[in-house]
Amino acid sequence: MLGGMSAPHTVDLDALVRRFIGFIVAKDLTAACAMLTPDCVYDNVPMGPVTGPEAVRTGLTPFLGECDQIDWVVHHQVARQDGPETGVVMNERLDRFHLGGRWVEVPVAGLFVIEQGLISLWRDYFDLATFRNSMSPGS
Amino acid sequence: MLGGMSAPHTVDLDALVRRFIGFIVAKDLTAACAMLTPDCVYDNVPMGPVTGPEAVRTGLTPFLGECDQIDWVVHHQVARQDGPETGVVMNERLDRFHLGGRWVEVPVAGLFVIEQGLISLWRDYFDLATFRNSMSPGS
Repeated sequence: MLGGMSAPHTVDLDALVRRFIGFIVAKDLTAACAMLTPDCVYDNVPMGPVTGPEAVRTGLTPFLGECDQIDWVVHHQVARQDGPETGVVMNERLDRFHLGGRWVEVPVAGLFVIEQGLISLWRDYFDLATFRNSMSPGS
Repeated sequence: MLGGMSAPHTVDLDALVRRFIGFIVAKDLTAACAMLTPDCVYDNVPMGPVTGPEAVRTGLTPFLGECDQIDWVVHHQVARQDGPETGVVMNERLDRFHLGGRWVEVPVAGLFVIEQGLISLWRDYFDLATFRNSMSPGS
């Protein structure tokens, strides 16, 4: 019996978060939300949190749908492995959204807590006024 | 000659950033600024960057001077060692300042780039309106 059990698979947490961001940028919310735990918290700090993959999908769908191109530039990313499939990743990004014929940009620092290979907490820190000003056509 | 050279000392970057924060919280800006490179950039993202230890000291002195207590709670901190004295640290904090008889609080995500044992970049992400609202006496 024991011979049939495989050793715990060590997940590359840095790659996991980059794959998740790749799905967001590709607007593949089905693939992105499949990487979240059932009770995942997604917290846009100045706006407040939502809970669960469906709430994440519902929250992101309208805005991402308006964008004809999305580009998240990861400046720095740091990962800490706490177990084979568990740990914490933080990154510093420039999130860029092309909509209405122009690029909207917001500097972001993100936290990702991974449990059993799934994201249980995604928290993004940014300045809401910077985002809103970048959204306004006059900027 | 070679026998007299010691092996490169590996700096604990996680501990280095916690020590730096300890100096800030203790309002010991002399000790804190001694941990910065001469061309260190301190970037409060929604407000813009300053360069050099003296500019950091000049920028922080008035505000910290108004506080009779400072408490920065580190929720998560992740460090990546790129060399014996080089790497990147990111953390998620609640920065608390006691002034005017009340606590002002702001959730922050910070990036610290360390080169040769000194901090060359310190960049804090937060929502400026959240900080200002917490500062206003009516909140």
